[in-house]
Amino acid sequence: MTKPYKLVSREFKQENTHINVGDAVFGNESLPVIAGPCAVESEKQVLAIAKSVKNAGAKLFRGGAFKPRTSPYSFQGLGKKGLIFLAKVRKETGLPIVTEAMDVENFDLVEEYADILQIGSRNMQNFSLLKRAGTSDRPVILKRGMSATLQEWLMAAEYILEQGNRNVILCERGIRTFVRHSRNTLDFSVVSAVKKESHLPIIIDPSHAAGVRDQVTPLAYAAAAFGADGVMIEVHNHPEKAMSDGAQSLYPEQFLTLMKKMTAIHTIVAKK
Amino acid sequence: MTKPYKLVSREFKQENTHINVGDAVFGNESLPVIAGPCAVESEKQVLAIAKSVKNAGAKLFRGGAFKPRTSPYSFQGLGKKGLIFLAKVRKETGLPIVTEAMDVENFDLVEEYADILQIGSRNMQNFSLLKRAGTSDRPVILKRGMSATLQEWLMAAEYILEQGNRNVILCERGIRTFVRHSRNTLDFSVVSAVKKESHLPIIIDPSHAAGVRDQVTPLAYAAAAFGADGVMIEVHNHPEKAMSDGAQSLYPEQFLTLMKKMTAIHTIVAKK
Amino acid sequence: MTKPYKLVSREFKQENTHINVGDAVFGNESLPVIAGPCAVESEKQVLAIAKSVKNAGAKLFRGGAFKPRTSPYSFQGLGKKGLIFLAKVRKETGLPIVTEAMDVENFDLVEEYADILQIGSRNMQNFSLLKRAGTSDRPVILKRGMSATLQEWLMAAEYILEQGNRNVILCERGIRTFVRHSRNTLDFSVVSAVKKESHLPIIIDPSHAAGVRDQVTPLAYAAAAFGADGVMIEVHNHPEKAMSDGAQSLYPEQFLTLMKKMTAIHTIVAKK
Amino acid sequence: MTKPYKLVSREFKQENTHINVGDAVFGNESLPVIAGPCAVESEKQVLAIAKSVKNAGAKLFRGGAFKPRTSPYSFQGLGKKGLIFLAKVRKETGLPIVTEAMDVENFDLVEEYADILQIGSRNMQNFSLLKRAGTSDRPVILKRGMSATLQEWLMAAEYILEQGNRNVILCERGIRTFVRHSRNTLDFSVVSAVKKESHLPIIIDPSHAAGVRDQVTPLAYAAAAFGADGVMIEVHNHPEKAMSDGAQSLYPEQFLTLMKKMTAIHTIVAKK
Repeated sequence: MTKPYKLVSREFKQENTHINVGDAVFGNESLPVIAGPCAVESEKQVLAIAKSVKNAGAKLFRGGAFKPRTSPYSFQGLGKKGLIFLAKVRKETGLPIVTEAMDVENFDLVEEYADILQIGSRNMQNFSLLKRAGTSDRPVILKRGMSATLQEWLMAAEYILEQGNRNVILCERGIRTFVRHSRNTLDFSVVSAVKKESHLPIIIDPSHAAGVRDQVTPLAYAAAAFGADGVMIEVHNHPEKAMSDGAQSLYPEQFLTLMKKMTAIHTIVAKK
Repeated sequence: MTKPYKLVSREFKQENTHINVGDAVFGNESLPVIAGPCAVESEKQVLAIAKSVKNAGAKLFRGGAFKPRTSPYSFQGLGKKGLIFLAKVRKETGLPIVTEAMDVENFDLVEEYADILQIGSRNMQNFSLLKRAGTSDRPVILKRGMSATLQEWLMAAEYILEQGNRNVILCERGIRTFVRHSRNTLDFSVVSAVKKESHLPIIIDPSHAAGVRDQVTPLAYAAAAFGADGVMIEVHNHPEKAMSDGAQSLYPEQFLTLMKKMTAIHTIVAKK
Repeated sequence: MTKPYKLVSREFKQENTHINVGDAVFGNESLPVIAGPCAVESEKQVLAIAKSVKNAGAKLFRGGAFKPRTSPYSFQGLGKKGLIFLAKVRKETGLPIVTEAMDVENFDLVEEYADILQIGSRNMQNFSLLKRAGTSDRPVILKRGMSATLQEWLMAAEYILEQGNRNVILCERGIRTFVRHSRNTLDFSVVSAVKKESHLPIIIDPSHAAGVRDQVTPLAYAAAAFGADGVMIEVHNHPEKAMSDGAQSLYPEQFLTLMKKMTAIHTIVAKK
Repeated sequence: MTKPYKLVSREFKQENTHINVGDAVFGNESLPVIAGPCAVESEKQVLAIAKSVKNAGAKLFRGGAFKPRTSPYSFQGLGKKGLIFLAKVRKETGLPIVTEAMDVENFDLVEEYADILQIGSRNMQNFSLLKRAGTSDRPVILKRGMSATLQEWLMAAEYILEQGNRNVILCERGIRTFVRHSRNTLDFSVVSAVKKESHLPIIIDPSHAAGVRDQVTPLAYAAAAFGADGVMIEVHNHPEKAMSDGAQSLYPEQFLTLMKKMTAIHTIVAKK
């Protein structure tokens, strides 16, 4: 079978794509860590979390200003105000900002503030959004849809590359299975499969896969051991009061331990 | 557990919602059938198919002018020209038109031509699109996402109702499972579950679930027998030359037989 | 790809296998119905149910004497005493008996009493049991494993045929998916796929797929409409007191209505 | 909801169960590795592999003499002769033997030769086999069924404990999902969930989950990082000539590297 994708394929480009953002490089066998809360809640909150995750070794800060929520009655994010708080984080800590663009309408605005634009699982096949992201000069994190095949995911990335933007970072965040003891099932094998088929970097988000805090840490260690090109972790200074995803957010001190062990694991695995 | 949805729930509205479009009513225990090709390819094509499906008893015509495609290199639809051809079909046959709105950008345009707006599986949680659909005065067919739970689907409908549009028709089109002998697995039980939880009508699309022609007919009979509020079928005058979904499109003469038996089955099941 | 199965394939035997048991034929486009309780609980219980299902038109009686149960602390069946009660049912009503053989150890005993031996989902790849069933002169109902592919299922049947027993009836009873609104998801498409690949008859068990009573009836209508070679239904005279599967067992009066409509649907579908 | 299991639960026994076999301990936060070929093919083969895996640091040797195979036409194992070869391996290398018991019929025989009895995925709910294993004085490795929930799995273990055998080692080997880029999807989260619910040790088998060699090594590193109580790996001296599972078997030199890195990762993770 001929492969349906072109630009994302190893056939098209043999060497790994390296994507540089701030101090971080995705795709060069380092392990940059993106950390922060699910949602931006206040200036004070993001600054406090950013300082603690930077101190622990995170290279980028994440936080949502526009939140796609299953329910129309849930907190939908602070919008532009949230983006302004994120800019403050960047200014004060030097950490580049990763934040989600939910739709074409607000893309320009989010693009103005973000260092990396995130496209969420639910939007993996929002083709208009993908095309818009393809015209951006910012790198894009493209999360895998909850039941996307490898091919569908790479084709979604192809939409972005085809418009000119070659800086796509794939992010595995768990797939939907029959399992009920975790929110989703993290599919580690897809990391191998992506690296075989494509030159694009692929990172792992254990927080959304797990849905519960005590699974996040071992999944993050496993991600480092597996050879992912980065890890994205939800951290909150007061998880019990978080406006979203509190149950799966790490406490800052948990994150500190996690960073130390992840780094040590990565060193072993990366050694030739 | 309190239910997260409000407006879509049976608690909020006990009697079934009836949605009238042309001669068809969705939700009153009749079995309106929507038929037509996956994509509008030419004026001649849609007129030919429309006449034959009308003759067989279909109450509405379907055809895509904007096509969400897995690959950026696949046929993406005729766009506005396709909508104009659909308007011609309505004028010549009297059949109301069902067609997909893929994004907010083209929503106004599609709304101008469509009698029912369709939101596809991949967009089930495109919340910006749902909100825009909620301000429309046209009924909306909301297809279930490929791995959406009952609750996620009803919450997506809630986004539309919450904006004011109470005319949502849910459409089951198969879920993603481990199975490889069909494209997706049609989840009949969700029809029972929806009717229990919600007052909204629910129809079945056997064509996308099957992915192969010889499964479409028995699945359509099963849909009629199960008590769905309608069925949506892909029919093409030259399936072997179709620009998309040819393998699962029925020939007009197959559709004619199908309509006769579906109608007879529906009569038996609807009898008190 | 060459197919791994031989004896079960259409290539090996083109015409449908017909399996005659009592008044019923499986595989000749009729719709024999097997009905009865999940478990044999008492002589009085099985006789009462058997009379009522016979009266409604069922052709065979089902009931478990050896019950494979998820928990070692659940009711495990009456064993030999249950088989004796089933023999009584056959004597009094003339209905052939379908009952499960759980293991090789008790196979001889069950074989002595059963007209059709059932192999359950959990035992679909219990190869020793399959081989033993292959030496029996009784027809075998082979239920599909909860996550079995078409090929694995046909290969399991191949184990039986390969030992000499050519009378295997396949039974679809729902697959495990991410869905939570029903116990399992009934995979209707597999009926088409089996009929294409194999000459063996295939029946549907909506009771185990649904797990809740109100989904059983519409699934049974759908099974008749789809063209299954038979249907197996759980019926209990006092479902609320049943020792297993009460929640999904029909009341005798529900079964009576169901039989009438299923028969009418089957007549329509079977008509050339 | 009250929990349906008793003896396997943390409520019943708070401290971890430690299972000692040869030099290995399962459940004490060490990482014993079981290695060897899928099937015993010859005395020479098993001796060669056993020496090389022992040399690399494996604590136990695995190899199947009775093989449950999807097809009746596939190699079914050497039977008793295979067991005799395994005994030779134990005598020459001192490695305890892990081998599968497929049915009650051959259980006595397998029990005579094995140090640990394995019950395979397809037999996870073969209740007669579980009961027989419950009367054995040998530890049992109970593999998770391909679509078993946490609860079903623990209930299967309960069957064994309930008969008196308290030495059960659970083994996660991948679950069936919609994914096609690996044979199964390894469910790491279940390790956390098991440790929370039960005192029994749980090991990981990356070979069967992956189905392809290049995914086995990173999955094994991830298993060590996640905190599993052991790892089971398929190793073959000539994978390309293996009579079963060649595609997923490691070469001895790959296994050597894997052992070094796994051990180093385990040291980091185990450190308090």
